[in-house]
Amino acid sequence: MSETSRASGRHYALLTDLYQLTMLQAYYVEDMQDTAVFDLFVRHLPEQRNYLIAAGLQPALDYITSLAFTPDELDYLDSLGRFRTQFLDYLAGFHFTGDVYAVPEGTVVFADEPLVEVIAPLPQAQLVETFILNQVHFQTLIASKAARVVHAAAGHTVVDFGLRRYHGIDAGMQAARAAWLAGADATSNVLAGKTWNIPVNGTMAHSYILAHDSEANAFARFAELYPDTVLLVDTYDTLAGVRKVVELARELGERFQVSAIRLDSGEIGPLAHEARNILDRAGLERVQLFVSGDLDEHAIAALLAGGAPIDGFGVGTRMGTSADAPFLNCAYKLVEYAGENRMKLSRDKATLPGRKQIFRVRESGLNARDIIARHDERCAGTPLLRPVMQSGNILRDTLPSLAVSRDHCRVERTALPAGVKSLQPGAPYPVELSSGLIAAREGLRRRIQKRGLQASPPILRDAINQDQPD
Amino acid sequence: MSETSRASGRHYALLTDLYQLTMLQAYYVEDMQDTAVFDLFVRHLPEQRNYLIAAGLQPALDYITSLAFTPDELDYLDSLGRFRTQFLDYLAGFHFTGDVYAVPEGTVVFADEPLVEVIAPLPQAQLVETFILNQVHFQTLIASKAARVVHAAAGHTVVDFGLRRYHGIDAGMQAARAAWLAGADATSNVLAGKTWNIPVNGTMAHSYILAHDSEANAFARFAELYPDTVLLVDTYDTLAGVRKVVELARELGERFQVSAIRLDSGEIGPLAHEARNILDRAGLERVQLFVSGDLDEHAIAALLAGGAPIDGFGVGTRMGTSADAPFLNCAYKLVEYAGENRMKLSRDKATLPGRKQIFRVRESGLNARDIIARHDERCAGTPLLRPVMQSGNILRDTLPSLAVSRDHCRVERTALPAGVKSLQPGAPYPVELSSGLIAAREGLRRRIQKRGLQASPPILRDAINQDQPD
Repeated sequence: MSETSRASGRHYALLTDLYQLTMLQAYYVEDMQDTAVFDLFVRHLPEQRNYLIAAGLQPALDYITSLAFTPDELDYLDSLGRFRTQFLDYLAGFHFTGDVYAVPEGTVVFADEPLVEVIAPLPQAQLVETFILNQVHFQTLIASKAARVVHAAAGHTVVDFGLRRYHGIDAGMQAARAAWLAGADATSNVLAGKTWNIPVNGTMAHSYILAHDSEANAFARFAELYPDTVLLVDTYDTLAGVRKVVELARELGERFQVSAIRLDSGEIGPLAHEARNILDRAGLERVQLFVSGDLDEHAIAALLAGGAPIDGFGVGTRMGTSADAPFLNCAYKLVEYAGENRMKLSRDKATLPGRKQIFRVRESGLNARDIIARHDERCAGTPLLRPVMQSGNILRDTLPSLAVSRDHCRVERTALPAGVKSLQPGAPYPVELSSGLIAAREGLRRRIQKRGLQASPPILRDAINQDQPD
Repeated sequence: MSETSRASGRHYALLTDLYQLTMLQAYYVEDMQDTAVFDLFVRHLPEQRNYLIAAGLQPALDYITSLAFTPDELDYLDSLGRFRTQFLDYLAGFHFTGDVYAVPEGTVVFADEPLVEVIAPLPQAQLVETFILNQVHFQTLIASKAARVVHAAAGHTVVDFGLRRYHGIDAGMQAARAAWLAGADATSNVLAGKTWNIPVNGTMAHSYILAHDSEANAFARFAELYPDTVLLVDTYDTLAGVRKVVELARELGERFQVSAIRLDSGEIGPLAHEARNILDRAGLERVQLFVSGDLDEHAIAALLAGGAPIDGFGVGTRMGTSADAPFLNCAYKLVEYAGENRMKLSRDKATLPGRKQIFRVRESGLNARDIIARHDERCAGTPLLRPVMQSGNILRDTLPSLAVSRDHCRVERTALPAGVKSLQPGAPYPVELSSGLIAAREGLRRRIQKRGLQASPPILRDAINQDQPD
């Protein structure tokens, strides 16, 4: 893998929110080093999503294992005037020693289900929050969108085309990876192809046509160099462009091997029908139609429902920005510390306490319901959370290759009930809480509320170092 | 600047669409090395935007000047079976030798106005397309969104809080940079702070509260370590949390120096009023209110219009994903080749031919209208496009520092007419085409349409190398 694919914590220790470091210093001063459990989950699905596809685990794990602070980074922190020398010395030796559980990439997941569970000394589990949320959030967002695009394309080719309008370099890379994981067939992104062995795809832009004296000349020269190429026909007038392809076929005779034409503008449905007719009348039935431009799952479904004779789709901006739902309401929350359950009661943001397991119950060959349980409960169904890191070491044998994860994702999507798979909002997939988890939540809620009635405990001044940082 | 900020082309030569490389080989084979002019512009503004803020030029220029292919990258291209040895040898010596013109970062721009104009031998100008679009698109998108957030905050503090939900690593960095450029006061992103000298900001998360036996204890310990900190009050019950801050003030007396409290959930407007009352009644008028959670320019404007006594806003996800308009309809189009104007006629995607200049006309101290002209015309107003790279070298003396660009952006925003500055869609800012540009466009349109009536030119077989690549 190239450096771009490896989200090295050695370069990104400071790619975090400042409060992680101020809290870390507080934990250091207060000697709060007991084991913490944090859950990464999505609070609510966007209304345009019936399910999500978990993704982004691999870069998150790569980051965690290599997380370390360089002298240059510590100098910068020192310059902020908030951190003590002893704490910076502690950061100089920082590395992650904990365990991580996760659902495999490509797995279908729903609201409240932990995608990742981190179990480590509190400061370690805290510090990795920002980065792993950043990575798992984005790839899950895009894999979930791409799964809908692939579903809409109903077996026709889908190519990721949108690098230029995705949100920066890393988004360009990760979106290609997530779309491929979720079932896309190829990407235009060459570096993503090299990094993850994804098929790369692409032919010509309008600028190639424009740089030539005529469209016909541009077609002829490109087809001479790349006989089985795709010709872009809409630079000046789409149907006139198609007729120039037919003329080229007549001139070249048997040497004409152009595999497809691409339409990138106008009313794609009617144009596809007319283009198909022009090609078929000329005996070019084997020349395929590839379309692009402002596509998403709804546009693709409408084109196919209208019978548009399209063979493949180039999908860009709207897929790799998840344009109709450009973020997930995800969180990374402390659920246990020093062996005790923890939970937040904030309005609309209450959390589920303690270590967990997710059980998925199949009925008649389809996934029927999930149960979120305490980690030590036994419920019906298959457990989804698996160990992926132990004592700071990635359990590489348990991590499937991206190709295997892609197969897993296809099986997962196939096993979804039709209403959940649909592009339209449907009846929510049933996700239950186990009796053990409900009991833990209600017990803890009562204890917190009871404690709220008591007087605040005395301030433990003795335990606090009086040496102020600023 | 750290490596993260420098978008080095030495690492990203393959971060491009495959078709750039297939076209490059065609240009190589056809010996099409004449000078090309490409314009990067936005076709239409999203309906939620009255103006844009140009941004992202610096990483685009850094990429262009360092763009080069490594042996490892060339080996990968070779493995694709589409590229000839001579062409790969040519890529091995590839570097950019052209000129670049651009509007300065922080400048207000509108549809059709070139943000960047690249003038170089055709293959060079072509190859940089994907990357510079990726960078300029994203930072312009976020600077434009952040300018609205800053406008809505009406002088109150705005802090970028959203690294965890921005689209990957690079988006996390660039969004912090773009928001700062557009007037935000600080970021939570430590690496962005280090890289661009942006003030960093942040205090505690809910997990800090949850890890302690009680909220009061957590407050006391954090304030002991960081006397002028911001305390997060909504973990269990917002107003009970505020009362615990009051109790802490009573206990600490003069040693109480907490600067603010933060509300992150619930009905922020009413809670802010009640929290303010509780603090004021306790004589804590100087403790400020900082709010966060699901904010955008509309939420901020509504809070302030409702008189909510808020001093600062932490704005995250919706700003750094530009959630209401997560992409711009931007393009990079060939407008001149070998000294001749070029233009696309595709429906809704027609382009303006030839090298250009933008003139901005001020009236009564405000910007009144822009004129897009041919580059050699003289129009009323101030020209916006300036040379930033000559013969492949960045004109560093002409590139302002980020701090200076930020000041420039503030002046630019101030000079906008009120209707354009508004959060609501208003009468569009007037952008005219010069008589010279209109004449060039119509003349070229007639020539293209006339040419379309002629027979296609013969295929220039002799000029094409018969050695097929695959």
